[in-house]
Amino acid sequence: MRKLHVIKVGGKIVEQEESLKVFLDEFHALKGLKVLVHGGGVLASTIGEKLGIPAKMIEGRRVTNAETLDVVTMVYGGLINKKLVARLQALGQNAIGLTGADLNLIEAIKRNPIPVDFGWVGDIHSVQINWIKVFLEQGIVPVIAPLTHDAKGHLLNTNADTIAGTLASVLAGFYEVQLLFCFEQKGVLSEGGVLPIIDQNGYRELKEKGTIVDGMIPKLDLSFEALEAGVSSVRILHFSAMNSTNSGTEVQ
Amino acid sequence: MRKLHVIKVGGKIVEQEESLKVFLDEFHALKGLKVLVHGGGVLASTIGEKLGIPAKMIEGRRVTNAETLDVVTMVYGGLINKKLVARLQALGQNAIGLTGADLNLIEAIKRNPIPVDFGWVGDIHSVQINWIKVFLEQGIVPVIAPLTHDAKGHLLNTNADTIAGTLASVLAGFYEVQLLFCFEQKGVLSEGGVLPIIDQNGYRELKEKGTIVDGMIPKLDLSFEALEAGVSSVRILHFSAMNSTNSGTEVQ
Repeated sequence: MRKLHVIKVGGKIVEQEESLKVFLDEFHALKGLKVLVHGGGVLASTIGEKLGIPAKMIEGRRVTNAETLDVVTMVYGGLINKKLVARLQALGQNAIGLTGADLNLIEAIKRNPIPVDFGWVGDIHSVQINWIKVFLEQGIVPVIAPLTHDAKGHLLNTNADTIAGTLASVLAGFYEVQLLFCFEQKGVLSEGGVLPIIDQNGYRELKEKGTIVDGMIPKLDLSFEALEAGVSSVRILHFSAMNSTNSGTEVQ
Repeated sequence: MRKLHVIKVGGKIVEQEESLKVFLDEFHALKGLKVLVHGGGVLASTIGEKLGIPAKMIEGRRVTNAETLDVVTMVYGGLINKKLVARLQALGQNAIGLTGADLNLIEAIKRNPIPVDFGWVGDIHSVQINWIKVFLEQGIVPVIAPLTHDAKGHLLNTNADTIAGTLASVLAGFYEVQLLFCFEQKGVLSEGGVLPIIDQNGYRELKEKGTIVDGMIPKLDLSFEALEAGVSSVRILHFSAMNSTNSGTEVQ
């Protein structure tokens, strides 16, 4: 099977010119087939604030009322996604920006409003992977915004880590997939610095001790799920270290 | 050759739920292959205003500084484009939202700042039509936002009528193309009401008399260019009348 990198990059990185440039150069240097999934939450909050639509978060997750859905559709699907595509084109890398609505790529179900009403937030129901394979085989990088749709005419806000993990798992049926979570830290942090490797036992211990908290918990849960689904390797690492051997934290 | 409709729809129509619904039902009822090109200028001005980036127009054309480019990228490439795609999916019509940067579809050249500096506005340089043909042959509607790119990493604001006319002309090499400009009027208006037909001589007379003015002038210029490039027919008509025989104004 051909090798494929599925790369998730955090919003903070692609929202700022300096880190965006470093990331894109690293991304471009990475050889072989690639899928890019991006976030954009910080910029969505900033622009929402300016529009008089302040961000409301519950347990670190955005509550997405109709107005907020418009904001994230603009910022994720438009501003960030299309800028990434234009920048990749300038590097000579053909690319296509997609949401889950495009080509019916990712259908999701609006989350049950009980116990917490997150509004227009979707949990992935099904993935149509064929077009992604077509683009990859033609040397094109799919650039995917964290938006899905409900097949009833509504876009839905869906976590970018979850989209990356799910796509990696589905693509593992066709490629030897390496899933990389790129962010602004050097990996999974413990008292002694960056953990070179983490397994399920180590994760359980560190979670109980309160060393691993917040956004790292779902990221690691997704990583273990992806490995179980057949993804070959999962790394959590700094966005400038994609091409360095053994950088960041290897999830095993 | 197979028949193909290239349909331009004005921003005012797709920005409001009531007219959007009428338009989408008409669009969906239209048989055969279809490409949709949309505007979005009114909503871009409204959202820009809220963000403290007021619209500046010269001769009816938007001056696009860096901040305004972000606004139109969000509104055209994100909000309007992805909503249209999600709504088409709900009608059972597979669709893909694209800008000129995606798949390197439409490369443009930043307009010369002399005599008027329009900022990040692009004039079309080249069109890569192959992927559009691939989507069409698979029954997928390409939904195209009025954004292009300069292949140097910048998106460019490009008039939606121009994109529709250019795509129609290029596609006329492969399909029997009907180009429809859908807007909120019943066609090209003269003293006696809607003109059923307009040709170059009639156009020249009405322009000299001052009956045809403003945005209708470039629309008609583009229509005549498209006909010369091999487009089979061009009509300018109300967005609710796409399926009515002989509605609007036929450009000849």
